[in-house]
Amino acid sequence: MADDKRGPRERMVYSTAQLVRAQGPAATGVREVVEHSGAPRGSFQHYFPGGKDQLVGEALLWSGDFAARWVATYPRTTSRPTPGGLFAYMVKQWKDEFTARGYRRGCPVMAATADLAGGDSAVNEQLRAALERWERAVVDELVRMDIPRRRARRLATLMISALEGAIMSARVRRDVGPLTTVVAELSPVLNAAAER
Amino acid sequence: MADDKRGPRERMVYSTAQLVRAQGPAATGVREVVEHSGAPRGSFQHYFPGGKDQLVGEALLWSGDFAARWVATYPRTTSRPTPGGLFAYMVKQWKDEFTARGYRRGCPVMAATADLAGGDSAVNEQLRAALERWERAVVDELVRMDIPRRRARRLATLMISALEGAIMSARVRRDVGPLTTVVAELSPVLNAAAER
Repeated sequence: MADDKRGPRERMVYSTAQLVRAQGPAATGVREVVEHSGAPRGSFQHYFPGGKDQLVGEALLWSGDFAARWVATYPRTTSRPTPGGLFAYMVKQWKDEFTARGYRRGCPVMAATADLAGGDSAVNEQLRAALERWERAVVDELVRMDIPRRRARRLATLMISALEGAIMSARVRRDVGPLTTVVAELSPVLNAAAER
Repeated sequence: MADDKRGPRERMVYSTAQLVRAQGPAATGVREVVEHSGAPRGSFQHYFPGGKDQLVGEALLWSGDFAARWVATYPRTTSRPTPGGLFAYMVKQWKDEFTARGYRRGCPVMAATADLAGGDSAVNEQLRAALERWERAVVDELVRMDIPRRRARRLATLMISALEGAIMSARVRRDVGPLTTVVAELSPVLNAAAER
């Protein structure tokens, strides 16, 4: 990561996303974010007058965009895009992360849901928007594969649900097995949807 | 819930599970648990000399057993058990919860994963055990339907992953739609596995 090319604002948002992924938003404090990001002390208030809520909300939107961009790169990786291939590509990002860097960091959307979705947190709107941006990117790819949009929405929900749950199981077990399993079990089903 | 029939120890474990479901373990404090449970002040140290870690660990094991027992009741609800029927039954518990009581409380295993699985928390062992007990109950039911154990393990991973992810999406959107979708999309696939 070319952290040094980012300004302090971007670094703080990025650091928040990474800390939230590892420990959830409840345990992530502003001071820890400032230290992790290497941003000048005192710059936090300047960039985030809305405080921790603003910071976490922007980290979630950043994460949703990051996930959406990853999904949009899929067609460049293959000459024969398929729904199963797309799902495997989404899952691969997580297998690579866990294999290379261990199980420390999970999905920020799941972390924010666990800590905040049960209450009336100010970031629930951004949480919803982050999930929607990611899901819309998946739907768009499926539609390009000639799957009707309505069906594509259902498959995107299934794909993201299975991926999120498998990320959870993989972290609990410290084993990428659940990620491998959901790809092997779902790919044929997803591909069958494209052949109708 | 017949809370009044439970002793203070059981009430504190139950309260911990409920608070963790709503806000995650990081934000759940011992004092809040004691108040929520109505247990006598000072009884906490007596019952939980291992402190908050012991309490959260026991709450997770309680939750895993609760989920496993629910799964084991499925055969009593139908004269023709099927894998898709079992999955719908597991999901129904969550649809009923969200419909009747709103989206305040999610899955305690997911909440603990989000806050703790990234570090070396003392409860990670119980977190793993809770997920395993639940998954084993699902595998046992699938094996009773004549699905070979190895395949049953894979399907159980898929079912629990899809359910967990759909719980997450349902809470984010405040809509049971994702739960309905994963049942509709997965049931035929699961049933096909039993017909081989």
